[in-house]
Amino acid sequence: MAESTKKTIILGIDPGLASTGFGVIEQEGGSLKCLDYGTISTKAGGQLGIRLKEISEKLCQVIDKYEISVAAVEEIYFCKNVKSALAVGQAKGAVLLSCSNCGLPVYEYTPLQIKQAITGYGKADKNQIQQMVKILLRLKAVPHPDHAADALAVAICCAHSQKHENTKTQKH
Amino acid sequence: MAESTKKTIILGIDPGLASTGFGVIEQEGGSLKCLDYGTISTKAGGQLGIRLKEISEKLCQVIDKYEISVAAVEEIYFCKNVKSALAVGQAKGAVLLSCSNCGLPVYEYTPLQIKQAITGYGKADKNQIQQMVKILLRLKAVPHPDHAADALAVAICCAHSQKHENTKTQKH
Repeated sequence: MAESTKKTIILGIDPGLASTGFGVIEQEGGSLKCLDYGTISTKAGGQLGIRLKEISEKLCQVIDKYEISVAAVEEIYFCKNVKSALAVGQAKGAVLLSCSNCGLPVYEYTPLQIKQAITGYGKADKNQIQQMVKILLRLKAVPHPDHAADALAVAICCAHSQKHENTKTQKH
Repeated sequence: MAESTKKTIILGIDPGLASTGFGVIEQEGGSLKCLDYGTISTKAGGQLGIRLKEISEKLCQVIDKYEISVAAVEEIYFCKNVKSALAVGQAKGAVLLSCSNCGLPVYEYTPLQIKQAITGYGKADKNQIQQMVKILLRLKAVPHPDHAADALAVAICCAHSQKHENTKTQKH
Protein backbone atom coordinates (compact mmCIF):
# COMPACT_ATOMS: atom_id res chain seq x y z
CA MET A 1 0.00 0.00 0.00
CA ALA A 2 2.83 2.41 0.83
CA GLU A 3 4.30 1.81 -2.60
CA SER A 4 1.21 2.96 -4.46
CA THR A 5 1.05 6.32 -2.72
CA LYS A 6 4.73 7.18 -3.16
CA LYS A 7 5.38 10.26 -5.27
CA THR A 8 7.56 9.83 -8.32
CA ILE A 9 8.72 12.83 -10.32
CA ILE A 10 9.20 11.96 -13.97
CA LEU A 11 11.02 14.01 -16.60
CA GLY A 12 10.01 13.43 -20.21
CA ILE A 13 12.38 14.76 -22.85
CA ASP A 14 12.01 15.29 -26.60
CA PRO A 15 15.61 15.90 -27.73
CA GLY A 16 16.42 18.32 -30.53
CA LEU A 17 19.40 20.55 -31.25
CA ALA A 18 17.42 23.71 -32.03
CA SER A 19 14.68 22.93 -29.51
CA THR A 20 14.56 20.26 -26.80
CA GLY A 21 11.16 19.77 -25.19
CA PHE A 22 10.80 18.83 -21.54
CA GLY A 23 7.85 17.93 -19.35
CA VAL A 24 7.81 17.28 -15.60
CA ILE A 25 4.99 15.25 -14.06
CA GLU A 26 4.31 13.97 -10.57
CA GLN A 27 2.87 10.50 -10.18
CA GLU A 28 1.20 9.63 -6.88
CA GLY A 29 -0.66 6.37 -6.93
CA GLY A 30 -2.87 6.50 -10.02
CA SER A 31 -2.86 10.28 -10.12
CA LEU A 32 -0.74 12.42 -12.44
CA LYS A 33 0.02 16.12 -12.08
CA CYS A 34 1.89 18.40 -14.45
CA LEU A 35 4.57 20.38 -12.61
CA ASP A 36 6.25 22.12 -15.54
CA TYR A 37 6.90 21.95 -19.25
CA GLY A 38 8.73 23.98 -21.86
CA THR A 39 11.54 23.98 -24.38
CA ILE A 40 15.27 24.62 -24.32
CA SER A 41 16.35 26.44 -27.46
CA THR A 42 19.82 26.98 -28.90
CA LYS A 43 20.80 29.28 -31.72
CA ALA A 44 21.85 27.92 -35.10
CA GLY A 45 25.42 28.70 -36.11
CA GLY A 46 26.96 28.27 -32.66
CA GLN A 47 29.68 25.66 -32.01
CA LEU A 48 27.95 22.31 -31.68
CA GLY A 49 29.66 21.41 -28.39
CA ILE A 50 28.58 24.73 -26.87
CA ARG A 51 24.97 24.25 -27.99
CA LEU A 52 24.86 20.76 -26.49
CA LYS A 53 26.33 22.13 -23.25
CA GLU A 54 23.57 24.77 -23.09
CA ILE A 55 20.92 22.04 -23.45
CA SER A 56 22.68 19.92 -20.83
CA GLU A 57 22.99 22.72 -18.29
CA LYS A 58 19.36 23.78 -18.56
CA LEU A 59 18.20 20.18 -18.34
CA CYS A 60 20.29 19.66 -15.19
CA GLN A 61 18.68 22.77 -13.68
CA VAL A 62 15.23 21.23 -14.26
CA ILE A 63 16.40 17.90 -12.78
CA ASP A 64 17.70 19.65 -9.66
CA LYS A 65 14.72 21.97 -9.27
CA TYR A 66 12.09 19.23 -9.32
CA GLU A 67 14.20 16.46 -7.76
CA ILE A 68 13.49 14.20 -10.73
CA SER A 69 13.84 10.49 -10.04
CA VAL A 70 13.48 9.04 -13.53
CA ALA A 71 13.74 10.30 -17.10
CA ALA A 72 12.07 9.08 -20.28
CA VAL A 73 12.74 9.66 -23.97
CA GLU A 74 11.24 8.42 -27.16
CA GLU A 75 13.14 5.63 -28.86
CA ILE A 76 13.75 6.91 -32.36
CA TYR A 77 13.78 4.44 -35.22
CA PHE A 78 13.41 6.60 -38.24
CA CYS A 79 13.98 10.14 -39.44
CA LYS A 80 13.19 11.73 -42.76
CA ASN A 81 16.85 11.46 -43.76
CA VAL A 82 20.38 10.71 -42.55
CA LYS A 83 21.13 14.41 -41.95
CA SER A 84 18.25 14.86 -39.51
CA ALA A 85 19.05 11.48 -37.89
CA LEU A 86 22.59 12.71 -37.17
CA ALA A 87 21.27 15.97 -35.68
CA VAL A 88 18.61 14.29 -33.52
CA GLY A 89 21.11 11.62 -32.50
CA GLN A 90 23.60 14.23 -31.33
CA ALA A 91 20.99 16.00 -29.21
CA LYS A 92 19.75 12.70 -27.80
CA GLY A 93 23.30 11.56 -26.95
CA ALA A 94 23.91 14.79 -25.04
CA VAL A 95 20.54 14.50 -23.26
CA LEU A 96 21.12 10.88 -22.21
CA LEU A 97 24.63 11.65 -20.99
CA SER A 98 23.32 14.63 -18.99
CA CYS A 99 20.72 12.45 -17.27
CA SER A 100 23.32 9.78 -16.53
CA ASN A 101 25.68 12.42 -15.13
CA CYS A 102 22.85 13.53 -12.82
CA GLY A 103 22.43 9.90 -11.69
CA LEU A 104 19.06 9.47 -13.41
CA PRO A 105 17.98 6.23 -15.05
CA VAL A 106 16.58 6.92 -18.52
CA TYR A 107 13.91 4.71 -20.06
CA GLU A 108 13.12 4.65 -23.74
CA TYR A 109 9.70 4.07 -25.25
CA THR A 110 8.78 3.45 -28.86
CA PRO A 111 6.27 5.73 -30.58
CA LEU A 112 3.82 2.79 -30.50
CA GLN A 113 4.22 2.36 -26.73
CA ILE A 114 3.64 6.07 -26.20
CA LYS A 115 0.51 6.12 -28.36
CA GLN A 116 -0.91 3.03 -26.68
CA ALA A 117 -0.11 4.26 -23.17
CA ILE A 118 -1.86 7.56 -23.76
CA THR A 119 -4.77 6.80 -26.05
CA GLY A 120 -4.95 3.00 -25.92
CA TYR A 121 -4.71 3.15 -29.69
CA GLY A 122 -1.44 2.51 -31.57
CA LYS A 123 -2.38 4.59 -34.57
CA ALA A 124 -3.45 7.75 -32.77
CA ASP A 125 -2.43 10.96 -34.53
CA LYS A 126 -0.54 13.91 -33.06
CA ASN A 127 -3.73 15.86 -32.31
CA GLN A 128 -5.34 12.93 -30.45
CA ILE A 129 -2.17 12.48 -28.38
CA GLN A 130 -2.08 16.16 -27.48
CA GLN A 131 -5.76 16.22 -26.49
CA MET A 132 -5.21 13.20 -24.24
CA VAL A 133 -2.13 14.81 -22.66
CA LYS A 134 -4.32 17.81 -21.85
CA ILE A 135 -7.06 15.62 -20.36
CA LEU A 136 -4.79 13.24 -18.42
CA LEU A 137 -2.87 16.12 -16.82
CA ARG A 138 -6.00 18.28 -16.36
CA LEU A 139 -4.44 21.18 -18.28
CA LYS A 140 -6.54 24.13 -19.42
CA ALA A 141 -5.18 23.93 -22.95
CA VAL A 142 -3.10 21.68 -25.16
CA PRO A 143 0.53 22.29 -24.17
CA HIS A 144 2.61 24.21 -26.71
CA PRO A 145 4.95 23.99 -28.50
CA ASP A 146 4.76 20.44 -29.90
CA HIS A 147 8.17 19.51 -28.43
CA ALA A 148 6.86 20.20 -24.93
CA ALA A 149 3.64 18.23 -25.58
CA ASP A 150 5.71 15.31 -26.91
CA ALA A 151 7.91 15.43 -23.80
CA LEU A 152 4.83 15.31 -21.53
CA ALA A 153 3.48 12.38 -23.57
CA VAL A 154 6.61 10.29 -23.03
CA ALA A 155 6.60 11.19 -19.32
CA ILE A 156 2.97 9.95 -19.04
CA CYS A 157 3.94 6.76 -20.91
CA CYS A 158 6.71 6.22 -18.37
CA ALA A 159 4.25 6.73 -15.50
CA HIS A 160 1.85 4.18 -17.00
CA SER A 161 4.62 1.71 -17.70
CA GLN A 162 6.05 -0.73 -15.21
CA LYS A 163 9.60 -0.18 -16.43
CA HIS A 164 10.57 2.26 -13.70
CA GLU A 165 9.04 0.31 -10.82
CA ASN A 166 12.50 -0.96 -9.90
CA THR A 167 13.71 2.60 -9.61
CA LYS A 168 10.95 3.41 -7.17
CA THR A 169 11.62 0.24 -5.18
CA GLN A 170 15.32 0.97 -5.03
CA LYS A 171 14.57 4.27 -3.35
CA HIS A 172 12.75 2.64 -0.44
CA MET B 1 58.92 33.13 -32.95
CA ALA B 2 57.71 32.09 -29.51
CA GLU B 3 54.35 31.17 -31.00
CA SER B 4 55.80 28.67 -33.43
CA THR B 5 57.59 26.67 -30.72
CA LYS B 6 54.63 26.49 -28.35
CA LYS B 7 53.42 22.99 -27.62
CA THR B 8 49.79 22.19 -28.36
CA ILE B 9 48.27 18.88 -27.30
CA ILE B 10 45.50 17.83 -29.66
CA LEU B 11 42.92 15.11 -29.08
CA GLY B 12 41.38 13.53 -32.17
CA ILE B 13 38.20 11.53 -31.62
CA ASP B 14 36.31 9.09 -33.84
CA PRO B 15 32.98 8.69 -32.01
CA GLY B 16 31.13 5.37 -31.94
CA LEU B 17 28.84 3.73 -29.40
CA ALA B 18 30.52 0.31 -29.44
CA SER B 19 34.00 1.73 -30.00
CA THR B 20 35.21 5.32 -29.83
CA GLY B 21 38.71 5.90 -31.18
CA PHE B 22 41.02 8.52 -29.69
CA GLY B 23 44.45 9.81 -30.64
CA VAL B 24 46.63 12.29 -28.75
CA ILE B 25 49.34 14.22 -30.57
CA GLU B 26 51.73 16.95 -29.56
CA GLN B 27 52.40 19.75 -31.99
CA GLU B 28 55.51 21.85 -31.48
CA GLY B 29 56.27 24.18 -34.34
CA GLY B 30 56.13 22.04 -37.46
CA SER B 31 56.81 18.83 -35.57
CA LEU B 32 54.18 16.28 -34.58
CA LYS B 33 54.55 13.53 -31.97
CA CYS B 34 52.11 10.77 -31.08
CA LEU B 35 51.56 10.60 -27.32
CA ASP B 36 48.83 7.97 -27.16
CA TYR B 37 46.04 6.33 -29.07
CA GLY B 38 43.44 3.63 -28.50
CA THR B 39 39.75 2.90 -28.28
CA ILE B 40 37.04 3.12 -25.64
CA SER B 41 34.66 0.18 -25.92
CA THR B 42 31.22 -0.33 -24.40
CA LYS B 43 29.19 -3.50 -24.33
CA ALA B 44 26.06 -3.91 -26.41
CA GLY B 45 22.84 -4.36 -24.46
CA GLY B 46 23.68 -1.92 -21.66
CA GLN B 47 21.48 1.10 -20.96
CA LEU B 48 22.35 3.74 -23.56
CA GLY B 49 22.88 6.52 -21.01
CA ILE B 50 25.29 4.33 -19.02
CA ARG B 51 27.28 3.44 -22.14
CA LEU B 52 27.57 7.10 -23.11
CA LYS B 53 28.70 7.92 -19.57
CA GLU B 54 31.44 5.27 -19.79
CA ILE B 55 32.72 6.84 -23.02
CA SER B 56 32.54 10.30 -21.48
CA GLU B 57 34.40 9.34 -18.30
CA LYS B 58 37.24 7.60 -20.14
CA LEU B 59 37.55 10.49 -22.57
CA CYS B 60 37.74 12.96 -19.67
CA GLN B 61 40.53 10.83 -18.13
CA VAL B 62 42.52 11.14 -21.37
CA ILE B 63 41.84 14.90 -21.50
CA ASP B 64 43.11 15.32 -17.92
CA LYS B 65 46.11 13.01 -18.29
CA TYR B 66 47.56 14.74 -21.34
CA GLU B 67 46.33 18.27 -20.56
CA ILE B 68 44.62 18.48 -23.94
CA SER B 69 44.05 22.00 -25.24
CA VAL B 70 41.92 21.32 -28.29
CA ALA B 71 39.79 18.47 -29.64
CA ALA B 72 38.90 17.52 -33.20
CA VAL B 73 36.26 15.26 -34.71
CA GLU B 74 35.23 14.35 -38.20
CA GLU B 75 32.20 16.18 -39.51
CA ILE B 76 29.83 13.43 -40.58
CA TYR B 77 27.58 14.03 -43.56
CA PHE B 78 26.42 10.58 -44.46
CA CYS B 79 25.97 7.13 -43.02
CA LYS B 80 24.88 3.95 -44.69
CA ASN B 81 21.40 4.36 -43.21
CA VAL B 82 19.28 6.29 -40.71
CA LYS B 83 19.79 3.69 -37.97
CA SER B 84 23.57 3.98 -38.03
CA ALA B 85 23.28 7.79 -38.31
CA LEU B 86 21.24 7.84 -35.09
CA ALA B 87 23.82 5.64 -33.31
CA VAL B 88 26.84 7.64 -34.50
CA GLY B 89 25.01 10.87 -33.74
CA GLN B 90 24.32 9.79 -30.16
CA ALA B 91 27.97 8.91 -29.56
CA LYS B 92 29.12 12.14 -31.18
CA GLY B 93 26.70 14.22 -29.10
CA ALA B 94 28.02 12.64 -25.90
CA VAL B 95 31.64 13.14 -27.02
CA LEU B 96 31.12 16.81 -27.92
CA LEU B 97 29.31 17.49 -24.66
CA SER B 98 32.13 15.79 -22.70
CA CYS B 99 34.74 17.98 -24.39
CA SER B 100 32.66 21.10 -23.75
CA ASN B 101 32.22 20.10 -20.10
CA CYS B 102 36.03 19.81 -19.86
CA GLY B 103 36.32 23.33 -21.31
CA LEU B 104 37.78 22.14 -24.61
CA PRO B 105 36.98 23.77 -27.94
CA VAL B 106 36.08 21.11 -30.52
CA TYR B 107 36.76 21.63 -34.21
CA GLU B 108 35.11 19.64 -36.93
CA TYR B 109 36.71 18.67 -40.22
CA THR B 110 35.11 17.15 -43.27
CA PRO B 111 36.44 13.84 -44.66
CA LEU B 112 37.78 15.87 -47.63
CA GLN B 113 39.69 18.25 -45.35
CA ILE B 114 41.19 15.31 -43.46
CA LYS B 115 42.29 13.54 -46.62
CA GLN B 116 43.78 16.69 -48.09
CA ALA B 117 45.55 17.65 -44.86
CA ILE B 118 47.19 14.25 -44.56
CA THR B 119 47.87 13.13 -48.12
CA GLY B 120 47.37 16.32 -50.13
CA TYR B 121 44.88 14.31 -52.14
CA GLY B 122 41.11 14.50 -51.61
CA LYS B 123 40.43 11.03 -52.92
CA ALA B 124 42.98 9.11 -50.84
CA ASP B 125 41.73 5.72 -49.64
CA LYS B 126 41.77 4.40 -46.08
CA ASN B 127 45.05 2.54 -46.56
CA GLN B 128 46.84 5.61 -47.94
CA ILE B 129 45.58 7.70 -45.00
CA GLN B 130 46.78 5.11 -42.49
CA GLN B 131 50.21 4.86 -44.11
CA MET B 132 50.58 8.64 -43.99
CA VAL B 133 49.48 8.73 -40.32
CA LYS B 134 52.27 6.23 -39.61
CA ILE B 135 54.85 8.29 -41.52
CA LEU B 136 53.80 11.72 -40.21
CA LEU B 137 53.88 10.51 -36.59
CA ARG B 138 56.99 8.35 -37.10
CA LEU B 139 55.20 5.24 -35.81
CA LYS B 140 56.71 1.78 -36.24
CA ALA B 141 53.47 0.37 -37.63
CA VAL B 142 50.08 1.51 -38.85
CA PRO B 143 47.99 2.23 -35.74
CA HIS B 144 45.22 -0.26 -35.00
CA PRO B 145 42.29 -0.55 -34.78
CA ASP B 146 40.89 1.66 -37.56
CA HIS B 147 38.97 3.86 -35.08
CA ALA B 148 42.27 4.83 -33.43
CA ALA B 149 43.95 5.51 -36.80
CA ASP B 150 40.98 7.66 -37.85
CA ALA B 151 41.20 9.60 -34.58
CA LEU B 152 44.92 10.27 -35.13
CA ALA B 153 44.14 11.38 -38.70
CA VAL B 154 41.65 14.02 -37.55
CA ALA B 155 44.11 15.19 -34.87
CA ILE B 156 46.80 15.65 -37.55
CA CYS B 157 44.31 17.53 -39.73
CA CYS B 158 43.61 19.83 -36.79
CA ALA B 159 47.35 20.41 -36.30
CA HIS B 160 47.78 21.29 -39.97
CA SER B 161 44.74 23.55 -40.00
CA GLN B 162 44.68 27.14 -38.89
CA LYS B 163 41.31 26.74 -37.17
CA HIS B 164 42.73 26.33 -33.69
CA GLU B 165 45.29 29.14 -33.91
CA ASN B 166 42.98 31.37 -31.88
CA THR B 167 42.94 28.77 -29.13
CA LYS B 168 46.71 28.81 -28.97
CA THR B 169 46.81 32.59 -29.00
CA GLN B 170 44.25 32.83 -26.21
CA LYS B 171 46.54 30.83 -23.98
CA HIS B 172 49.41 33.36 -24.24
